[in-house]
Amino acid sequence: MTVAECAAALRAADDVLLLTHARPDGDTLGSAAALCAALRRLGKRAALYPNPEITESYRVLTAPYLGDGTETFTVSVDVAGETLFPRGFQGAVALAIDHHPGNTGFAAQTLLCAEKASCGEIVMEVIETLCGDLTAEEANLLYAAVSTDCGCFCYANTTAETLRAAAYLLDCGADNHRLNKLLFRACRLSRLKLEGMIFSDLRSRHDGKINIAVVTQEMMARAGATEDDCDDLASLAGKVAGNVVAITVRELAPGRSRASVRTDGSVDANAVCARFGGGGHKMASGCTAALAPEALAEQICAAVEEQMT
Amino acid sequence: MTVAECAAALRAADDVLLLTHARPDGDTLGSAAALCAALRRLGKRAALYPNPEITESYRVLTAPYLGDGTETFTVSVDVAGETLFPRGFQGAVALAIDHHPGNTGFAAQTLLCAEKASCGEIVMEVIETLCGDLTAEEANLLYAAVSTDCGCFCYANTTAETLRAAAYLLDCGADNHRLNKLLFRACRLSRLKLEGMIFSDLRSRHDGKINIAVVTQEMMARAGATEDDCDDLASLAGKVAGNVVAITVRELAPGRSRASVRTDGSVDANAVCARFGGGGHKMASGCTAALAPEALAEQICAAVEEQMT
Repeated sequence: MTVAECAAALRAADDVLLLTHARPDGDTLGSAAALCAALRRLGKRAALYPNPEITESYRVLTAPYLGDGTETFTVSVDVAGETLFPRGFQGAVALAIDHHPGNTGFAAQTLLCAEKASCGEIVMEVIETLCGDLTAEEANLLYAAVSTDCGCFCYANTTAETLRAAAYLLDCGADNHRLNKLLFRACRLSRLKLEGMIFSDLRSRHDGKINIAVVTQEMMARAGATEDDCDDLASLAGKVAGNVVAITVRELAPGRSRASVRTDGSVDANAVCARFGGGGHKMASGCTAALAPEALAEQICAAVEEQMT
Repeated sequence: MTVAECAAALRAADDVLLLTHARPDGDTLGSAAALCAALRRLGKRAALYPNPEITESYRVLTAPYLGDGTETFTVSVDVAGETLFPRGFQGAVALAIDHHPGNTGFAAQTLLCAEKASCGEIVMEVIETLCGDLTAEEANLLYAAVSTDCGCFCYANTTAETLRAAAYLLDCGADNHRLNKLLFRACRLSRLKLEGMIFSDLRSRHDGKINIAVVTQEMMARAGATEDDCDDLASLAGKVAGNVVAITVRELAPGRSRASVRTDGSVDANAVCARFGGGGHKMASGCTAALAPEALAEQICAAVEEQMT
């Protein structure tokens, strides 16, 4: 469906429940909350499903929009498939707004714009069509959506259109200073300590092309870190200049570890992880093995080096 | 002078020497190199003064534009005052292009746009006026200028205009994927190790409002770090969520340390540092003392706490 058709469907609806995806990020939460604010502005009853996995930074942004999940017209926002939302809503989604190329088409109607870097850019157009403008509050929520999905305009998915969408949100009153600080600059002390331990212990091999990060349970304890502090640890080793393959191994329990392998595409991460019973994609794969983290790291590194020589 | 007048002055010139500032950053180098490329496109002789302090990431971008410093029409780019360029050019700058509000007016003519987040945004307009368009190479150099001065669109100086300028540079062919990786993602292993040690050893006081980073010579040695790895270390402690005052103390020699104090404005960093014979601004000050780093950190922290209670 088109943006205009999506806006018409929302205009016809009243009691709107907005679903966000599992392990919710800024895009799903910001987009859903902005749409919720706009629907309420039109006098409708609307709320976000109370996703139990909302993390600290996003709790403050989404709090005014969380409901009890009893609204009847169900709209999913930034959700690629039915496994990503709670049981009970399968087959029950009236409208999906999404930018994932792999959206499974689970909803009765879908507005899919796969070329957009964020779902926020789509919802921005939907709200403009619905209401004719954006409030500063909606602009703030959409800025959170747009900026987090492209790593504050640093990731490869950032396009000229993404930057123009963000510029327009600033025109509408989005406070990028406050939001950038909240979303990108501020970090829990436990996360910083854990990152610190990982970086200070990073091993660089093969002329700096392979970089290995090991995260033990002892490090987690020493940093006072919990699962909340472990987002995207697999990307850290790849920050080394000249990196080709980043290997991150996390100790799950004594003698049991999980590895994540990220490559620039010249090494097949899937082939490496398949040797340990795992897999994934060519540039990002994982596996779990009954090994201590150091041992798994060495074996993965050896498998990577075989491909590099 | 206006952008049009600046373009006219450059059109009338031929043998152009472009001066960048001391400890050159992406804005001074990217802006000067882009302008150099545009002037050469018009058939002029033009080159950058071979600034000896160009760091690794920028060497690759600027290499084709570095000359021997013999050109005769001298233009400074992103330079606020005459103390920031080499001896011999004082009183000899024909044209200054700058965005620093404190530009001292040292040049015969000055194009000053203090409202711009980066000098790159001004040079973009100058090149458009001079040549009618931007090449992909010029767009790449200007993207480096614009994006580094606003921390990849994350710092408080990022405006809607900054984002639109970047969008336009992408339209003109700037490869933001490659440049973001070079300028923001990739990091020397020694820098990552040093950051890692600083973060893993960070001390949080006063309910997380004061955060203290200590950098000893032993840490520098253990990380294999040099002065090149020490850019902006004073900003690291401020990344802790809820931080109000970030104190960074660096050991200069045994028994001699330098402290940097950054605050959100509620604590007067200048007053704190003045007690140790230093000073600066309310939100960012420094001082040097004949003390071991731990001792100086404790004394600064005590002075900060006096203001907070």
